[in-house]
Amino acid sequence: MTRAMNFGAGPAALPLEALERAQRELCDFDGTHMSVMEHSHRGKAYEKVHDEALALVRQTMGVPDDYEVLFLQGGASLQFAMIPMNLLPAGGMAHYVVTGAWGEKAVAEAEVVARTGGGAVKVAATSEKDGNYTSLPTEIAPTDGAAYVHVTSNETIHGVQYALDSSTPFPARPPLVCDMSSDILGRVVDVRAFDMIYAGAQKNIGPSGVTLVIAKKSLLDGGRKDAPVVLQYRTHAKARSLYNTPPTFGIYLVRNVLSWLVGLGGVPAIEERNRAKAKVLYAAIDGSGGFYRAPVDVAARSIMNVVFRLPTPELEAELVKAAEAEGMIGLKGHRSVGGLRASLYNAVEPAWVSALADFMKTFAAKRG
Amino acid sequence: MTRAMNFGAGPAALPLEALERAQRELCDFDGTHMSVMEHSHRGKAYEKVHDEALALVRQTMGVPDDYEVLFLQGGASLQFAMIPMNLLPAGGMAHYVVTGAWGEKAVAEAEVVARTGGGAVKVAATSEKDGNYTSLPTEIAPTDGAAYVHVTSNETIHGVQYALDSSTPFPARPPLVCDMSSDILGRVVDVRAFDMIYAGAQKNIGPSGVTLVIAKKSLLDGGRKDAPVVLQYRTHAKARSLYNTPPTFGIYLVRNVLSWLVGLGGVPAIEERNRAKAKVLYAAIDGSGGFYRAPVDVAARSIMNVVFRLPTPELEAELVKAAEAEGMIGLKGHRSVGGLRASLYNAVEPAWVSALADFMKTFAAKRG
Repeated sequence: MTRAMNFGAGPAALPLEALERAQRELCDFDGTHMSVMEHSHRGKAYEKVHDEALALVRQTMGVPDDYEVLFLQGGASLQFAMIPMNLLPAGGMAHYVVTGAWGEKAVAEAEVVARTGGGAVKVAATSEKDGNYTSLPTEIAPTDGAAYVHVTSNETIHGVQYALDSSTPFPARPPLVCDMSSDILGRVVDVRAFDMIYAGAQKNIGPSGVTLVIAKKSLLDGGRKDAPVVLQYRTHAKARSLYNTPPTFGIYLVRNVLSWLVGLGGVPAIEERNRAKAKVLYAAIDGSGGFYRAPVDVAARSIMNVVFRLPTPELEAELVKAAEAEGMIGLKGHRSVGGLRASLYNAVEPAWVSALADFMKTFAAKRG
Repeated sequence: MTRAMNFGAGPAALPLEALERAQRELCDFDGTHMSVMEHSHRGKAYEKVHDEALALVRQTMGVPDDYEVLFLQGGASLQFAMIPMNLLPAGGMAHYVVTGAWGEKAVAEAEVVARTGGGAVKVAATSEKDGNYTSLPTEIAPTDGAAYVHVTSNETIHGVQYALDSSTPFPARPPLVCDMSSDILGRVVDVRAFDMIYAGAQKNIGPSGVTLVIAKKSLLDGGRKDAPVVLQYRTHAKARSLYNTPPTFGIYLVRNVLSWLVGLGGVPAIEERNRAKAKVLYAAIDGSGGFYRAPVDVAARSIMNVVFRLPTPELEAELVKAAEAEGMIGLKGHRSVGGLRASLYNAVEPAWVSALADFMKTFAAKRG
């Protein structure tokens, strides 16, 4: 079937196989003559899906046994509040490393929570320059004694991503909390290097409305007990994410997406595919003789969100329109930074990226 | 197609028409060659769905212009926290009328919030008797000066529902907040009689993962400003429920369900259908010569959740099993109260209820 080549930043392209599976069984799940979304979250049919989705997260991410896997709601935005509500004690200080707009939002919400919770928030490092982010900090101020250190592995809007190798200056000692919304499952990550990882599902995991949290059990157990019960991580950990009615159809789709990922060879295979896609696109940019320009430092370039500019905003608008006519959508950069952005999440087919690179070459030849 | 006769309490049966529409366009929404769940929540294709769903809530519920309609996440359980976080000022007192397990949960969470927020919580009335709920309070203690009064229009577990007529003793003066999770859209309700109505979607509105809030703008505007930004109602009101990524596919399904409801004649028509279904089932219970027994006071009987008992728990288990063999599922009562429960939400077909009533007569004749 004809598929749009969807380079949107999220909600984003999902694997066609996962969607078609959902379509096939939408009105009759597993021979039950009901949709999976009509099943009780406490019934066998749904619980099987729920447990399979949790197990697939453990399998694909290599989650150690002393970590919890939770499916929550509210996206990263609710995590921005829940993290300090749970992990920032009165008198404690949370350190934030800010490398883009999402890190800024996380700090702002933590400050609101700290105000009523008796804690404090500190920006331990930022790579902000003239209101923009095109690099990563090389140093982080000492974080000894921090309640936790919060980082953003990939900044979706700016296309800035940590390599997560020896060049990445994450502190080892305090609990390290990572917003991995836009690059989770896109490359191999050592879960043990973090104390908590969280992500909205709507980039690499599934549809919007599901939030994934992976965290050390001891971290969640030691959290504050004065937050509303529904906003305490331990509540959901104790109940296997069934404390209240979960977004069952969303979790079902996560199951479908992760099954597809396993079939493809898991995260190592998708990482190779993602790196190849990014290489093709950055090559098209770098090889354009300056017509296209990637503003982000080479070392900080994201393999998930490729941000680039053209000589003028008019040409940028023209490219977006011309690309849409070719079935390539979602290329407009975030309104706060302008320019263009191609998101290359897991479900974005390599063929789409090649088509985009070819299209960009032709466009540059005509307008350059 | 064969359909299970789903009497489950939620996530519950959805209209087949709404599901089939979703199935048809799952991989290609509106000719865009993408699933609706792959569309950006800030793009035209999804925004049209979002606005249509909001408009359908206004249309079907008759929501006045000075009320906001919000789509949130987290279900009623998160509302139990958000309501006092927003509406219970330091030094203020919230009054709760408790008529079942959900009201109890709402009080418990409000007490947690009050502890850190400087407010207080009071049970203004309860119909609890020997740990169970089979009636409604006829009187509510004076609520003058209350920050708000919280009521539950229908208690899903106990099958206790307010008539919302002159027999219902709701106070008129303080802001009246109603958990309408399990009977919203099931009968005509005057929205003006409440200051805030909220409901998890998974009974009469759509799939789990979407929460509907309808509230007076002035109530939300006057709320506390020290709660985390993502947990303040005004944040979502200002942003037309697009502050952060909403559960787009869930809202799309709400659109489908409400379109079906409008096609059926709207809430007045579905109320008539619901009352007829409940009449059939209660008649089967009352006419069984005591084999079936409805524990709830006649005046408090729910038309949405029909709770009943058999002479012994063994017979109850036998009926559940025999009904399943006939394609009737979800009849087991909540584990906390036992017995049987048939939920007769909007999407439960009258023919299913007749089939159940017939089945119950046959079962009673054999075992009575």
